[in-house]
This record gives sequence, C-alpha cells and structure tokens, in this order.
Amino acid sequence: MPYRAPVDEIRFVLDNVVGFDRVAATETFTEATAETVDAILTEAGKMTNEVLAPLNRQGDLHPARLENGVVRTSPGFKEGFEAIAEGGWLGMSADPEHGGMGLPITLTMAVNEMIGSACLAIQLNPLMTQGQIEALEAHASDEIRDLYIPKLISGEWTGTMNLTEPQAGSDVGALRTKAEPNGDGTYAVTGQKIYISWGDHDMAENICHLVLARLPDAGPGTKGISLFMVPKKLPDENGNAGVANDLKVVSLEHKLGLHGSPTAVMQYDGAKGWLVGEPHRGMAAMFTMMNNARLGVGVQGLSIAEAAMQHAIGYATDRRQGRTEAENGSILEHADVRRMVLDMKARTFAVRALCLDCAVALDMAKATGDASWAARGAFLTPIAKAFGTDVGIAVASEGIQVHGGMGFVEETGAAQYLRDVRVTAIYEGTNGIQAMDLVGRKLMDGGAAAFAILDEVDQADHEGLRAAGAELRTLTEWMLERPMQDRFAGSVAYLAAFARILGAHYHLRAAEADASRAPLARFAAGRLLPEALAEMAKARTGADELYALSSEEIAA
Amino acid sequence: MPYRAPVDEIRFVLDNVVGFDRVAATETFTEATAETVDAILTEAGKMTNEVLAPLNRQGDLHPARLENGVVRTSPGFKEGFEAIAEGGWLGMSADPEHGGMGLPITLTMAVNEMIGSACLAIQLNPLMTQGQIEALEAHASDEIRDLYIPKLISGEWTGTMNLTEPQAGSDVGALRTKAEPNGDGTYAVTGQKIYISWGDHDMAENICHLVLARLPDAGPGTKGISLFMVPKKLPDENGNAGVANDLKVVSLEHKLGLHGSPTAVMQYDGAKGWLVGEPHRGMAAMFTMMNNARLGVGVQGLSIAEAAMQHAIGYATDRRQGRTEAENGSILEHADVRRMVLDMKARTFAVRALCLDCAVALDMAKATGDASWAARGAFLTPIAKAFGTDVGIAVASEGIQVHGGMGFVEETGAAQYLRDVRVTAIYEGTNGIQAMDLVGRKLMDGGAAAFAILDEVDQADHEGLRAAGAELRTLTEWMLERPMQDRFAGSVAYLAAFARILGAHYHLRAAEADASRAPLARFAAGRLLPEALAEMAKARTGADELYALSSEEIAA
Repeated sequence: MPYRAPVDEIRFVLDNVVGFDRVAATETFTEATAETVDAILTEAGKMTNEVLAPLNRQGDLHPARLENGVVRTSPGFKEGFEAIAEGGWLGMSADPEHGGMGLPITLTMAVNEMIGSACLAIQLNPLMTQGQIEALEAHASDEIRDLYIPKLISGEWTGTMNLTEPQAGSDVGALRTKAEPNGDGTYAVTGQKIYISWGDHDMAENICHLVLARLPDAGPGTKGISLFMVPKKLPDENGNAGVANDLKVVSLEHKLGLHGSPTAVMQYDGAKGWLVGEPHRGMAAMFTMMNNARLGVGVQGLSIAEAAMQHAIGYATDRRQGRTEAENGSILEHADVRRMVLDMKARTFAVRALCLDCAVALDMAKATGDASWAARGAFLTPIAKAFGTDVGIAVASEGIQVHGGMGFVEETGAAQYLRDVRVTAIYEGTNGIQAMDLVGRKLMDGGAAAFAILDEVDQADHEGLRAAGAELRTLTEWMLERPMQDRFAGSVAYLAAFARILGAHYHLRAAEADASRAPLARFAAGRLLPEALAEMAKARTGADELYALSSEEIAA
Repeated sequence: MPYRAPVDEIRFVLDNVVGFDRVAATETFTEATAETVDAILTEAGKMTNEVLAPLNRQGDLHPARLENGVVRTSPGFKEGFEAIAEGGWLGMSADPEHGGMGLPITLTMAVNEMIGSACLAIQLNPLMTQGQIEALEAHASDEIRDLYIPKLISGEWTGTMNLTEPQAGSDVGALRTKAEPNGDGTYAVTGQKIYISWGDHDMAENICHLVLARLPDAGPGTKGISLFMVPKKLPDENGNAGVANDLKVVSLEHKLGLHGSPTAVMQYDGAKGWLVGEPHRGMAAMFTMMNNARLGVGVQGLSIAEAAMQHAIGYATDRRQGRTEAENGSILEHADVRRMVLDMKARTFAVRALCLDCAVALDMAKATGDASWAARGAFLTPIAKAFGTDVGIAVASEGIQVHGGMGFVEETGAAQYLRDVRVTAIYEGTNGIQAMDLVGRKLMDGGAAAFAILDEVDQADHEGLRAAGAELRTLTEWMLERPMQDRFAGSVAYLAAFARILGAHYHLRAAEADASRAPLARFAAGRLLPEALAEMAKARTGADELYALSSEEIAA
C-alpha cells in the first residue's frame, strides 16, 4: 500500500489542536493564510506521494556507496532531492532576504513530516540543510550568509553538522579537532569527525560542513569550542564551487537502517574554514542548529509512525483470516489487531500534535519576541524529540506485529520502518540527553514553563487528565527540590510522563472540536494516562537506588 | 565483548527462585543431581562460549542460501550443529529408550538459553527438532518412533513444523494441503507451506517434516486436520535416508534477522507421508509440539536479552566519556546509562525465572502426574512466550541505546540482536495469540491455576507486590465474568501485568535468598509494579471501546 500524505489530518491538528491561527495572525507570518497553508500541504503531499515514496525501498536496497573517494547515492535520489529543492521546501522558513519564503517553522515541520514518511533517508538531508541555514542566519557574518544561504535554499549546495569524534559523542566538550589561523582571516581545520549524515553525495555541487573545532588558545571543555564553515569545494571569486578543499570521506558506516543516507567518517587535513560566530562560542551557535534539528528529529519519529501505521492498516484491511463477526472479515475485525492499530493511531496523533504545538511556540516566539513563548518552545523541544522518536520506534515495531510473519520478511516493507527509525532516538542528542536537558536546563526557570503548560492541562474537561496533571505538578516540584543526580535518575520517566499527559490533552482537544474523534480520544486517554502514572512512579527513583550497586557489581 | 554463559546465575535461579530441588527429588528425575546439573551447565556453557558464539555474526553476514534447490548454510554452522549434537544437547529430555538422557525439560531450557544467546539462528534448529521428538513420543506409532527418534536425537536427521500456508497463518484451520491414501498405509501429501524454519539445510543427512494436512473425508476448520511425517529422503529398508521424496524448497525468505536460519517455502507434490496420531486429530498432536516450543521461544527472548545485556554492559564499562563522580569514569557511571543497564538486568532476571518456573511445573507434572502442576505449566507457558520475547525485544533495543551512535552501526553487533529477536514475538503463535490463549483456554478452569499462583504472591513480604497481586486477582475475576470479546480486548495487557507481578515476585525471592540481590530487586519492583498497574488499567478496556470506530473509520 503506497503512502498517502495525511493532508487533512495535519490541517485538522493545525486548526483545532495547536492553534495555528495565532501564528497566522501575527505580522511576521501574514503570508501564512489558510489558502497558502492548503496549497503548501497539498502540493507537498503530491510530491511525497508521487516522487519520493517510490524511492524509499530503493534507498534501502541500494545503499549510498563510496567509490574512489566520492559518494554515489541510491537510484533516483538525485531526482528526488531536485524535486524537494525545486518545490522550494528547503527554504520555506528561511529569510526572504536570501531567497527563502519566510513561512512559519510549523509549516516546515508539517512538510518535513510528509517527506520523512515518504523517504526518511532522503529527508535527513533537507533537515541538516535547514538547520545550517538557521545557524548561519543567526550567527554568520554577512559575507558568509550572502554567499552560502541562497545556495543552500536553492539546493545547489547542502549542509552538514560535524560534532562527533570517536572520543567525543554525547560529551562534545571532549573534541580535539583543531583550527589554526592561516593569517588571512581563514583557518586550517584538522581532525576526524564521525557520523556525518550526508557528509558527501552526488545530489548537489557543493557540501558545506559546519565543523566544531578548537582554536589554539582555546580552553578545555565546551567553552573552548568554535564553529567553522568548511566547504567541500572552495568558493571561487564569483561565489561558485571551485577547487577542492583539503578534506575527504574516509568511509561510510554500514548501518541498521537509513541505507540511502550516507553516514560518513570525515577527515579534515588543514582544510580551509571560516569562523562562524564568535571565537569559543561555537557551542551556542551549534545549539541554534541543533535545537530546531531536535524538533525535526522528533518529526522524523512522527514520519515513520504515520507511514508504518498506514502500511499496517492497509495490510490489516486487505488480509482476510479467521472467522470474524463482521461481514468483510479482515483481520482488522480481530480484537487484538484493532487494539494495535488504534494504539498506533492514538500515539501518532499525539506526537503530531506535540511536534506542531512545539513548532507553534517557536513561531510565536519569533513573531512576538515574547519570552514565555520561547520558554514553551524550549521546554517542548526535548519532549517532542524523545517522545516522537520513541513513538516512531514503538509504532514501527507494532506495525511489524500487525503483519505477523510477513512483518519479518523484508519485501513487506514493515521492517524497514523499524530499521530506519531506530537511530532517531540516538542522533541529535540521545533521548537520555533530551531528558537530562528537560529536568536540568529546562527547569532552570524554576518550573515556570512546565507550570504554564500544566495550567492548561488543569482546564481540561476530564477528571483523569486533571488528576494526572496535578500529580505531574507535584512531581515537577519534587524535581525542583532534588539535587541534579536525582533529577537525572528520573529524567527519562519524567519526560515520558509529561509527553503522555500532553498526548491525552491533545486528544481531548481534538474530540471537543470534532465529536467523531471522541472514541479515539477515549482509547488514547485509557492508555496514555495509566502509563503516565507508572512513569511518574519511576521518576521518583532517585540516584541512590541507581548507585546501590557499584559498576563492578553490575558488570560482574 | 564475547558472550560468557551465565552458568552461576542460572544455577542460582534454579536453586533459590524456582525450586528445582523439587524436580530433582522426584523418582522420574533422580539423575538430575546437583553434580549432574553443574556438569551440564558448565559443559554446555563451554561449548556456547567457544564454539557457537563465534558463528553468530557469520550467520548474519553470510545468510543461508538456496543453490540448485539445496540450502547451503552459513560458514561454520555445520560444525556448530555437530557440536550441539555430539554434546547430546538435542535429546537431553528425550526418552532414554530411544537414546535420550531423560533429563528435566528445565535443564534443556537452561542449555537452550545459552545456545540461543551464542547464536540464535542455529539454536532454532535444535528447538524444532526437540519439539518434533516430543510430538513423536506422545503421538507416533512405535514404528515411527523407533525409526525417527534415535536419528533426531543423534542429529543425523533434524525436524521441522509445517503449519502455515499463505491463507492460513494464525488461523491454522484455513489450511488446504491435502493428504490422500496411497493404499499401502502411506499418504500422498500435496500443498504449499510457508515460514518453514530450517526447512532444508546441509547440516544433517535427512530432514523430517511434520506436516498438517487434510484427509479426503476431513471436515472444515481445525477439526479436519491430520498430522503427517514427510521426510525429505525416504527411509530405506535399513532405516537410512534413501531416495528423495516428492518435495522441494521453492524459495527462502529475505528476513529482518536470523539470516543464518533458512526460512523456506516448501512445496509438497504428492510426497509420501505417514500419519502421526489419529486421523483428524493433528492439531492436538501439533499442540504437544507447539506448547513446549512456545516456552522454548520465550527462552529465545531470554537468550537475546542476556546476550544484548552482556554486550551493552561490556561497552558501557569500557567506554569513557564525560565527567563522572567515580574514578574509572566509564559511561556506566552516568545515571541514565546505569538506569538502562539495571533495567536490562532486572528484566532479564525476571524472564529467566519465569521460563524456568514454567519448565519446573512441566517437569513436576510429568514426574508426579499431578493435574495442578500441569495446569500451572499450561498457564505460565503463554506468559513466558509473550513476556520473554517482549523483553528480548525491549532489552535488545535498550542495548542499542546504551551504545549510542555505535549501536546503529552493524559491525557493533547490538543491532543484530534486535533484528534477530524481533520474530520471536511473531512465530509459534503471535504474542496476541498467546494472550488470547491465556484469557481464553487457560482461564477455562475458572481461574484455578491463576488463583493458585496469586496465592503465592499473596505470601510475599512486600506490601506493594501484595497489593498488585490483589488487584490482579480482582481483574482475573472480572475477566471470568466478561464475554470473550471483552477478555480478548484486554488480553495483552492482562498478560503483561501478570508477567510483571511474577517478575517482581521472583526478584523478591532472590533477594530473600541472597541479600546482595536486594538492590536489583528494589529497582525491579519499582518498575515492574507501576507498569503492572498501568497494564491492569488497560486490561479493562472492553470490546466496546475497540469497536467504537468501524473498520472503515479506522482506515479512512
């Protein structure tokens, strides 16, 4: 069953659950009229259904490969990427000054969802490129912005993020890549970076690497890190891709999934780079890129949840097996298949609403400059990333189960969703890192952002939800009083509980707007709320319990 | 990090958690002395560590393949299987009359666990062969038993189960394969069977297919099904593998995992077969084979949980990253990595205890003839199968997460565990089917078996566990009063709750026997019990809620 972009469903969530009309009512986003939104979703949906979805299995079967130092992408990917670029989807939210459309990030996320459902491997490239555009808009000099951003928007060039090194993963501060001044305002960048998504490919004429490295006078840890633009080909005097820079792809990873997306080990040998932002302030600049990429990765989880759900429902509707009460006799009539499918539907809805709610907050922050919107967006981002990807994994696995034995056979396609989505819980900060961010940095406001959200939950016309929300408020207060190690010990469970309570909240909002959604909302609340209570119990574990056994005892 | 068989841990569970001494005290199993158990576990562990574990990645990288109608297995698999056969591990629990050792099924499961951890793909062959031996012991004529069982025990021949057809999966009653009398007491079997694990290979000289088919006078549904022995090569007058039978491998599946285990589409074209058991009673005979195979598949989940856990702990111990309080500074010191590793440890322990508890009940039933032991074993079997495999999947996925980015890279080995174990929730009856069995057939005793187990839980020295047990008793009573559709609607959650309460129960027993286990037991109870409460809330969903949306509305 081919993927069909859920244009109406996205529209419903925008209009009835996350209050997108508030974004459209701002001066910044006056162009995001109802007609424009319709046109965008319809047009993007057409492309994903017709052009991109057929590439998904191609990428899986014919992975990107390294040949004589150059990466060759999967069959059709070049044309697929061109379609994305020509549709203007790369620069939807970029500044019109450089050729962008200046549309809300909410719409970019909606379109990204559809592209990711159709072909997650290819979608990772736009996601990186969009993040780079944002980082450059926020931190780069006018010269770099004027040179790079138009080409990133047009898709002539694409972007990458270079953080990780073999000894520096979640602990970025341990990185060793060096940047030494060339004396002409440029720098010589030397070091090895790993896990570079779309680090090389043949779909664009240049690849722009944003690389974290240390200046000679840098201190240790994250405070001694600077950010550099290191293009694969050095721009010539006309700003076109010129001679090769001193960098190369060492190898590509052989991965569980996302075979169509080349993941490179990059070697920089005194490659020429330009400083982006202030010296030693690279982490701040990179965080701009990462924060929206984090929401983007949450949306990737949503993408796979939606695609896997459609795939499973298609199979369950067609497959006839056993005696059922209903006349059509498909396996969808069986209680447990129904339960699985409803579960997939309920969780997918919750994640979509969460991601779009987060995006609306980011747009409102940009449009109004109101710090409370920014705080809301910042608070929801790690939840959207972690819960979105956890749900993507869970729904993909449930999709395999709906297919029975067929689910384990690769030709069916259900297994690829699980293989592809598994990494989303790891990259852009593991989900454990997201949870630490939530109970650490995102509670540094004394819980203001959290409590503001819980105030909304408290208005819900549902006793169970209000009770769970009250419990979460108490837990948040408990977190605020505990030392950081205790918060960390319960962080994943705290995030999981928060996400589920929000999920139930969104479902109830949907049911209020459209009574035909009440059955799914009831089903969802009946699952998400008991799970939230269980997670809240776990969240109070405390560090002592984790460290009651020593590392040696654990490993014995 | 190479796999190390957890011999001491298995021994601890046998001695202190599941009361294996009761089995050893019966007349039937007088040979299962402490010394014998030690010798068996130690010897099997040596083989799994040294001979089988190195094959695991070979099987993944070099899948079994079909060449000119014959299946060629992965490098080293033939030698690996010979080691299993020569060790006597195929016929450990088989009747000594045919060359078996007559040892408790509990010990077979303990050894199977280690073999499966080392190389799950190869272990599936012994599991099928052991099931076939049991089915033949219980149902076949003396002639068939005398001919086949010794060769299955020696590993000269191996066994398969042939149930599924394209239109008949979970609904076995829909199968169409025919068996027509040849007039000489044999039958001509014609039809196609799919998902036949180890349906052909080059590790043994003959392959014995147990095939479900319909006699000409058979009624519809499962009551018209008979069981036939259809060997690949017809036994000659000396009982050796002779001329080829009229059957062939059509193709092998390209699967998510278990690449080393060939999964065949089998075609029978009037192949000669012998009736096993009574005409039209094939399902009963097949259930003998399936029931213990179901426990065996639960053990497969345990195998992967243990192997993935060891792998993750090895990585977390070696990997240094970030600042930690402790001196050694491995990532195992980080709160969230610890949480994941403890979670893996806690769940793996619970599943091992559950599987061995179930096996002890089966052994006691055999040794004592006591119907209450049989009922206990029958009740625990679907729980062990479903929870064991669910935990296998969850722990394998958590193992990937512990590895961070490395977890997504195939060379690391963490991803293979997830790919391999995923099918265990599907084959031998999907976990949904297990749950239906639990709330349907296994509650047909009015809840006697369930209540007997809950009586034990009620003796626990742990208030939270007793409270959860009481709640489960109430839920069981509720189930008994509800129509079957309501039971089915809540069946998966009911099973999940039962398993978690038992898991906490086993942990507390372990802590009573050995105080050094108290920290893990506390951690486990702090997770399993809240989860059980959540599952119990879901179990009361009722069918109305599942069918509030029509199939058309769901698929819209």
